[in-house]
This record gives sequence, structure tokens and C-alpha cells, in this order.
Amino acid sequence: MHILVTGAAGMVGRKFVERIARDGHLGERAVTQMTLHDVVPPIAPTGSIIFKTSTSDFAAPGEAANLVAERPDVIIHLAAVVSGEAESDFDKGYHVNFDGTYALFQAIRAIGDHYRPRVVFSSSIAVFGAPFPEAIDDEFFSTPLTSYGTQKAMCELLLADYSRRGIFDGIGIRLPTICVRPGKPNKAASGFFSNIIREPLAGQEAVLPVPTSVRHWAASPRAAVGFILHAATIDSARVGPRRNLTMPGVDITVGSEIEALRKVAGEKAVKLIRHEIDPTIAAIVDGWPRTFQAKRAHELGFTADKDFEAIVHAHIEDELAGKIAL
Amino acid sequence: MHILVTGAAGMVGRKFVERIARDGHLGERAVTQMTLHDVVPPIAPTGSIIFKTSTSDFAAPGEAANLVAERPDVIIHLAAVVSGEAESDFDKGYHVNFDGTYALFQAIRAIGDHYRPRVVFSSSIAVFGAPFPEAIDDEFFSTPLTSYGTQKAMCELLLADYSRRGIFDGIGIRLPTICVRPGKPNKAASGFFSNIIREPLAGQEAVLPVPTSVRHWAASPRAAVGFILHAATIDSARVGPRRNLTMPGVDITVGSEIEALRKVAGEKAVKLIRHEIDPTIAAIVDGWPRTFQAKRAHELGFTADKDFEAIVHAHIEDELAGKIAL
Repeated sequence: MHILVTGAAGMVGRKFVERIARDGHLGERAVTQMTLHDVVPPIAPTGSIIFKTSTSDFAAPGEAANLVAERPDVIIHLAAVVSGEAESDFDKGYHVNFDGTYALFQAIRAIGDHYRPRVVFSSSIAVFGAPFPEAIDDEFFSTPLTSYGTQKAMCELLLADYSRRGIFDGIGIRLPTICVRPGKPNKAASGFFSNIIREPLAGQEAVLPVPTSVRHWAASPRAAVGFILHAATIDSARVGPRRNLTMPGVDITVGSEIEALRKVAGEKAVKLIRHEIDPTIAAIVDGWPRTFQAKRAHELGFTADKDFEAIVHAHIEDELAGKIAL
Repeated sequence: MHILVTGAAGMVGRKFVERIARDGHLGERAVTQMTLHDVVPPIAPTGSIIFKTSTSDFAAPGEAANLVAERPDVIIHLAAVVSGEAESDFDKGYHVNFDGTYALFQAIRAIGDHYRPRVVFSSSIAVFGAPFPEAIDDEFFSTPLTSYGTQKAMCELLLADYSRRGIFDGIGIRLPTICVRPGKPNKAASGFFSNIIREPLAGQEAVLPVPTSVRHWAASPRAAVGFILHAATIDSARVGPRRNLTMPGVDITVGSEIEALRKVAGEKAVKLIRHEIDPTIAAIVDGWPRTFQAKRAHELGFTADKDFEAIVHAHIEDELAGKIAL
């Protein structure tokens, strides 16, 4: 089996690739080949799988056709410009997030000849826009308030129609905010959800720019990889024509994050969180969805982390080799 | 004021153009110029307005730029391939209904220089896909089950984002099934809603291919023109970021249509309806939405026909010069 991963150099992409390299199979089928694509050079793990890496703007003319020319059986389409950049650079956001995905879907169709890969598309809870109900159910409408959310919602519609038409067999997964993100603090408005856990566990100070009452929907990187694996192997007949699913997550508040940190790493860790309200970030976060009833995804066997404490433990195991710096 | 109408040769387009030609103004502003565009030559009415007609595939490269080059103040974007054709011709449907609209929106943006027209986009209740609640409210999600519905839903998302970004000031209106359509019976699966009224009123037989219990959401051509006029002039600040609105309609059953026909034109007219179930059409119609709670549109001042009898009277006045053939 041949798997193509776009956005393979990204955090979730890397973790998915490492997982497949470790497992050697996807579902019950052995993986023999993986094509890793990104705009920056992806890193191929070692192992028995034949890895091919490819670096380009996948949305540039002709690139999508190159990527699917070898007819990968499964396409994990993660490549995207992040929310903040899609908002600050209108052209780039549409070019990569929408035009690129549209071109990829068209390239699959252009092959014809009964080629019909499984396509897993990483969508986002940004397809929803305020005002929200307190918990967003599976039938709430997509009225995004960002260009990023608009682009994701448009791709979701395409994915469902192309799947209905039998051009490919797609599943769109709306990922919760991924937390705890490894690596350095970044400028994403959602960064603090990770920073206030990751930095204290590494003995570093972290800034919390919002009140502890802020509520959100989170999944560990490990859970996100699990969503992709399940979406890549699920019997799509069970999913039906509504191909885009809000993934299950953990209903967190910043306060509950801090409590979990205290339980796992003690008061010393919690003391490294500096409360310093940033009105700009607080306002952005105020426009985000809080919690979801991801009933369909639950019924279809997608599994969230058990609770936020489990998310912290997953981070310590996967990123810190089981050890806390404190 | 300069108005551009795409799809100006279509039924709704023609009626809108005739109305403006008659009124001479849109809201409180005098209309001095109208550009009528279609893929077949549109007919310009006579009057004091300067009419310019233009015939081309508006979705072809460069065409959208030509259409907006003169900076029309208002763009009424009605051009579309109908539902059946978008389903039978995948490429043409996406080319016209989606790619063409996307190109039009991009062409508006390319002008820059504070150009920010009002754009009225004719969307459709086909953005909704079964299973439905009995009455679809304003927050029900868009999961179309046709390529046509998919294309309209994607354009709705673009319209909202381009409006939010200040590129233009758009309003999307989801039209009910237009009934009574003038002209000859056509092959559209929804044709019977009109045929069973129009044909008997002209002394002709009509075939009813579905049970009388079939329920649907209808608006007269006159009401549709009213929706466009209101969408072209409404204060968009009142609409807010959710720019796409389900238009109000009349909640009809085929049985209630027949009762209205009986009341207006007598038993003789009703006897011209031949009941002959067509299982294919009955199955298609079974997948359509039944009724809506178009609460937002009502609150924003969009007005439906009073009832189905009013729709029949509007047809007799507008198409039959007030006279029934029977």
C-alpha cells in the first residue's frame, strides 16, 4: 500500500508518518511506500517502508498531478497555511488552502481509470463562527468568521461531492485545537493552551494571556494521529454522504488545564505560569467555539483523550521520554 | 446608478430587468445604465435607461474582468447551470456555477481602488440535503446531495468571506422553487409544481407525476424579483456576517395547489390534471426539503406571496393579462 502525505513536515504530519513507520501497516494492510510532501523538506524515518520525499508548493500548476501520478491508495491531505497567515495573506490562504485542495481533487479525477483513493482531509473547528450555542452539535451550520475557516468549509463541500460522485472516497476530520503542541512557543493565538503546560514541564515560565475561565475543545497530538488512522481505514459506507465530522475532544477550561498540571507536576510547575491578560488574544479567543457534541464521530469509533490529565501524560511520554524537568 | 445582471436572459433575470426598466430606479437611486449579460443574447427593454447587452461564457478566462471593468454599483449574479445539468455534466456545472462565480468575485477584488459593489447572489435551497427536520431553520447545516447544491454552498461561503473582508457587499438569497414558471413545460424534476397550474389555466392538460401529499417551498416569479430588489437595497449592517439567507416562501402541498386552482379557475381546470405517478421523479422529490422557518429573512423584511392562491393570481395577472383560457 502506498500512502501520500501532504504537509508531511508539519507537526501532525511528522507524527503520523513516524507512527506508520513504526507500525508498518495501515489497518490490516502492509504499507510498502510513502510519499512525503511539504513546502519545506520533510524528514523520512528509517525502516522497511520505501520513503520518497518531495518539496514544492503543492498548489502550483501541475504539482497536484505529479503527486497523484503514482496513484497512492491513501492520501492524507494535511497541507495548509495556518489560520493567522490565511487571514493576514488573503491570496496565499486561498491559493494553498482552497485552490491547492481543489487542484488535488481535480488531479485525482483526471486520472480516471477507476482510480479511487481514500482521501483524509484535515479540516478544522474554524468552519464554525460565532455566535454559537454553548455546545455545537453535528448539524450546526458552517458560517466561518475567518478566511481559513471559509477555505476549510469549501473544501469540505468539495470532498463530500467528489466522494458522492465516486471520484474518491473522502473523510474530512475537523480537528480540535491540538494541545500540548511540542516545540517552541509560537505566535498562534491558541498557543497558550499548550505553552502553559509544555513550558512549566520543561522548567520554563509561560504566559497565560486569557482568564482561567476560557473554555475550549482539545486533543493531544497522539489523539490527532489516531483520528487520521481511523479516518484512513473506516468503512465509509458507515459514514454515509455527510463526510465531514467534528472530531471528539476534551472539553477543557484553562483552569482545568492548570489543575491537571498541578496534579501531574505539582505546585512548582503551576507557579511558572504568569497571568498577564492580553486583551487582543482574549478577544480573539472569545470568538472561538467552546465545546461540541461530536456524537457522530463517537458513534463511528473516533476516540478522544480520556481527560486533560491524560493529555499531559501523553506529552510527557511522547516528548519528554517520561521525565519532567522540575 | 449602473446595474450588471448576469443570467439576464433567464426567466428571473428578464423579469428583474423589466421591473427596473419600468421603475427607473433601485431603492431611492435612479438607474441610468444596465449591463445585461448571458450566454444567450439577453433582450433589452426600451426606456430611459441605457442598456448594454453582452453575450459570452462569463466563466471563461478574462470575461469576469470585462464585466466589472465599468464598475457597476450593483451586481445581480443569477447566471447558473440548472440543477439537472450540473448533475449530468460535472465539468460544466463546476465551471459555470463555481469557477465562474469565484472568477467574478476575484475580478471585483482585482479592481481595488475602494470599488465595493453590492453583489446579490442567487443561491438555492439545494444547499440543504436530506435527511431534514420537518421544517429547516436558519441554522441548519449545508450538506447538499447534488453538485449544484455543493457549488451554490461554496459560493455562499466565498460571498460571506469576501463581504467580511470588505471586497464587496454581498447578500446571498436562497430562492424557493419558483412557481408558476411561465413558458413551456420543461424537463426539470420540479416542473410539475408549475405545469399543473400553468397548463390548465391555458386550457391544456398537465401531468402530475407525484402524490398530492408532496410538500414544498414556493415563491412566485414576482416574489423572486421582490427578493432581489430587497437584497440589492437592504442595509447590510442589519444582515451582519451571516450573509446567506433562506428566502421566505409559501408552504405548499400539491393538494393545496390543486385546491387553489379549483378556487380560482373551477373544476374544469382541475380536471385537466392527469395523475400519473413517475417513480423516478417521485423519488427525486422525496429527497427535497419540505418547509422552512425563514425567520431571519422575515425579520429583515423579505416578503413572500400571501398564499398559493395569490401565486396563481400573480401568474394570471403577469402572464395571462388577467384572463384564463377556460
